[in-house]
Amino acid sequence: MPISINTRFAFGVDGPTDVLLQFEAAALPEQTILSCETHLPPGQDFTRVPADDDIGERIWLSADGHCEVEYRAKIEIKRQLADLSSLQSLPAHQLPGEAIHYLLDSRYCHADRFQPFAQSEFGHLEGGAQIAAMRDWIHDNFSYTPGASGPDTGAVESFVTRQGVCRDYAHVLVALARACAIPARYVSCYSPGVSPPDFHAVAEVFLADPEIEGGGTWQIVDATGMANPSETVKIGVGRDAADVSFMTTFGASDFKSSSVEVREE
Amino acid sequence: MPISINTRFAFGVDGPTDVLLQFEAAALPEQTILSCETHLPPGQDFTRVPADDDIGERIWLSADGHCEVEYRAKIEIKRQLADLSSLQSLPAHQLPGEAIHYLLDSRYCHADRFQPFAQSEFGHLEGGAQIAAMRDWIHDNFSYTPGASGPDTGAVESFVTRQGVCRDYAHVLVALARACAIPARYVSCYSPGVSPPDFHAVAEVFLADPEIEGGGTWQIVDATGMANPSETVKIGVGRDAADVSFMTTFGASDFKSSSVEVREE
Amino acid sequence: MPISINTRFAFGVDGPTDVLLQFEAAALPEQTILSCETHLPPGQDFTRVPADDDIGERIWLSADGHCEVEYRAKIEIKRQLADLSSLQSLPAHQLPGEAIHYLLDSRYCHADRFQPFAQSEFGHLEGGAQIAAMRDWIHDNFSYTPGASGPDTGAVESFVTRQGVCRDYAHVLVALARACAIPARYVSCYSPGVSPPDFHAVAEVFLADPEIEGGGTWQIVDATGMANPSETVKIGVGRDAADVSFMTTFGASDFKSSSVEVREE
Amino acid sequence: MPISINTRFAFGVDGPTDVLLQFEAAALPEQTILSCETHLPPGQDFTRVPADDDIGERIWLSADGHCEVEYRAKIEIKRQLADLSSLQSLPAHQLPGEAIHYLLDSRYCHADRFQPFAQSEFGHLEGGAQIAAMRDWIHDNFSYTPGASGPDTGAVESFVTRQGVCRDYAHVLVALARACAIPARYVSCYSPGVSPPDFHAVAEVFLADPEIEGGGTWQIVDATGMANPSETVKIGVGRDAADVSFMTTFGASDFKSSSVEVREE
Repeated sequence: MPISINTRFAFGVDGPTDVLLQFEAAALPEQTILSCETHLPPGQDFTRVPADDDIGERIWLSADGHCEVEYRAKIEIKRQLADLSSLQSLPAHQLPGEAIHYLLDSRYCHADRFQPFAQSEFGHLEGGAQIAAMRDWIHDNFSYTPGASGPDTGAVESFVTRQGVCRDYAHVLVALARACAIPARYVSCYSPGVSPPDFHAVAEVFLADPEIEGGGTWQIVDATGMANPSETVKIGVGRDAADVSFMTTFGASDFKSSSVEVREE
Repeated sequence: MPISINTRFAFGVDGPTDVLLQFEAAALPEQTILSCETHLPPGQDFTRVPADDDIGERIWLSADGHCEVEYRAKIEIKRQLADLSSLQSLPAHQLPGEAIHYLLDSRYCHADRFQPFAQSEFGHLEGGAQIAAMRDWIHDNFSYTPGASGPDTGAVESFVTRQGVCRDYAHVLVALARACAIPARYVSCYSPGVSPPDFHAVAEVFLADPEIEGGGTWQIVDATGMANPSETVKIGVGRDAADVSFMTTFGASDFKSSSVEVREE
Repeated sequence: MPISINTRFAFGVDGPTDVLLQFEAAALPEQTILSCETHLPPGQDFTRVPADDDIGERIWLSADGHCEVEYRAKIEIKRQLADLSSLQSLPAHQLPGEAIHYLLDSRYCHADRFQPFAQSEFGHLEGGAQIAAMRDWIHDNFSYTPGASGPDTGAVESFVTRQGVCRDYAHVLVALARACAIPARYVSCYSPGVSPPDFHAVAEVFLADPEIEGGGTWQIVDATGMANPSETVKIGVGRDAADVSFMTTFGASDFKSSSVEVREE
Repeated sequence: MPISINTRFAFGVDGPTDVLLQFEAAALPEQTILSCETHLPPGQDFTRVPADDDIGERIWLSADGHCEVEYRAKIEIKRQLADLSSLQSLPAHQLPGEAIHYLLDSRYCHADRFQPFAQSEFGHLEGGAQIAAMRDWIHDNFSYTPGASGPDTGAVESFVTRQGVCRDYAHVLVALARACAIPARYVSCYSPGVSPPDFHAVAEVFLADPEIEGGGTWQIVDATGMANPSETVKIGVGRDAADVSFMTTFGASDFKSSSVEVREE
């Protein structure tokens, strides 16, 4: 069953301003774009560039004045879903070079600070079972509370307040995984079960691929429990939310509104 | 004149622990490794993997107990040095995809917060002249004060305290450059003029290459004024210090000592 | 000319919750309460206690369910206004014991970090002239931007972003004054010139009283320039905004609305 | 059995600098100063002022150049020790005005963020039993690790890292108590059991005095378990470590050495 997406947002800038956008479903082997249309503000220049890890694209918009963006797409997902708990972790020395920065501290995920807690709480487990335990621990101890966190909130604060939204849940999971030497990245996505409807975010962890000796596989993990990996449409990936904001403005801007609709057809 | 490097450091871990090391000069067109030898703790497994942007290598060490690392090398530098002030910036839409995450916030460089200040102080300038003005502003307003900052100190704190070491100077410069939409990365390096002798860090900014239409070039900028780009030996690059620590330990460790000697032969 | 105040706010709590309120004009020699009426939610217990430095009162409310608070008052102000620039500072050893914690770091004012900047920018001045220069520097370098800061924003962040509201302006001024060893406190207040109309905040600094040998005097300073000290109605004082929030809830709460009207009669 | 204290510390300042010192045992009904001598740097002016809550004194020193401070004292402690678990908390509306700022956020204790965790983990308990559970939880989940924290470390960071020294243990306990609406302050002190020997810090919480109807009593709680309240010599109290540092310098200083010896005679 395809996933149908309908996104709109509007903002204003005062004078010519560079705006970086990333809101379209990525074209990937695991998710086929059946149809899509993107409406950018008419008469304003834009360019597309590949995004991090070659997953999806970013759009540079030379914005000026009032801007409206609209995106409609239908996506078919054919993602192989492993049984998370049965996956092993890769020994550190088998990690490919490009996975290593997903072990390190980033803007919102100060992972090194979590080592003693992660070791004490999850150190008796390994690999996918360890990640599943982290996911369940966050799910059981946090309350999903829109408005309790903001753009500066990172995993350290969220771990204390035990509150937040998808972004905060993903940051804490990413930080805990990295603290146990499992590469973890942040995925911006669309998913039908999200309530209230909005852009969504989940974590992805890098574990041993049971089908390829010495190989690794990125697995979606959603500590909020709202998104089913088989219905999750990836937009982009990064080290945390700083890397995959749907809009980053280089200059003052005035955000006006957004709406996101995601439905299973 | 080649640069000669002699580095030693020692640490201890209690039980088998994964340690990520990055301390060797990178083999690059602009710097030739004339000779080098690396001594890792005997009897402990290690693997090498390419580091970020394919600059240099990281070493995974399966450490246990007391560990000593020693590195000696001779490097010849043939870096093309542009006149910074004469370089233009690339328009945002001409930036290659892989440069874009060097515009975004990272662990120690919360660049978006600096936009109003950067615009007000440096907004009348452009490109290399803007970067040169930032470099001089930091140099004139900060005092180089070993001990005034620590492993958690980021550009925001340093901007307030006006104190720090090479790492802090580089973080502030990186944050200011990104706030003006110029990609900036953090470079760990060796350089003969550093006092007291230690690992060094500088910033690199991505500006228009005057020799290649539409192309870009990374240019070293050192706000401390201690390192001459023509004598700077790059170890690795990243979004900030979190990415190029010479040692990252996944578990408790006890750092014992380090010494760094860098001489022009 | 008396100042007329009309304040309302509403919030909800889910189950019995202790709520601390501080929103009434303080009865002080320098401001006479001509008339006032306070409407607390009917049927809910409350107690009044003296607030910090015996300026004004706090109200403990045992809240439950939907709560509305309304306050109307007329105040006459007879504040002696000194010429700030002509006031001397008190030597540290002449400061009374109870002024000393207004020199120390607090929740939102990490004053020690500002010492090098304050010394470099304002170190050639002294006393009230130094404070006036700080006030003018903030006024000239910051932009009043509702929405740019939040409840976690402190002086360090505001100093970097150069944006904020009255609360942030006051925090930066308090931090700079303390960094120069001048006691500074945070004053919540009402003032007619505030736009958009809201609770207001200013700083107060402790300087030598020209009329009393060895004595000190607290002087209002508003870096936003919106409030005239001769029309400012004090609610309460504290080390920073954490101490004089108009509402502090010990449990989850849902803030619904507030309106503040302040007029010169 | 009296407690004998022998403290020395040395520092240097470059030019006349105001230094605030607080290192002497407070004269209190519960602890009698049998003998004491304080040696301040000769030829430098100083003044004594009462410290916060009238517990102990602060010394203003007009320091210049190299400074050495020495303090020797014998103290007899006659503190009434209640059974913590049996004490009730005071209802919020019975708290005296001067206890209320010990409920609010301070420099190192951002207590409001801990409300959901504190409610979830300790909400089924009340009063002294709740505090005892917090103390035991910290003791069981944290490791005493000199060097793991620094002067900027607050309760939020410590709660994540689960590491620190007496100061950090006290900050977390203070934050948790305030999050449950129990006033809590930070006490700098001397205690014989501290290892390695150093200045010590504990928390004090304000609970119902079983002997005085409607009255309250401050009770020492040490989550490190190193200090016995019957042997703890109070120096001063404050909202957190920012208020009772043994040395606060208003200008650059160079700390050289300190030694603290505390023995039961």
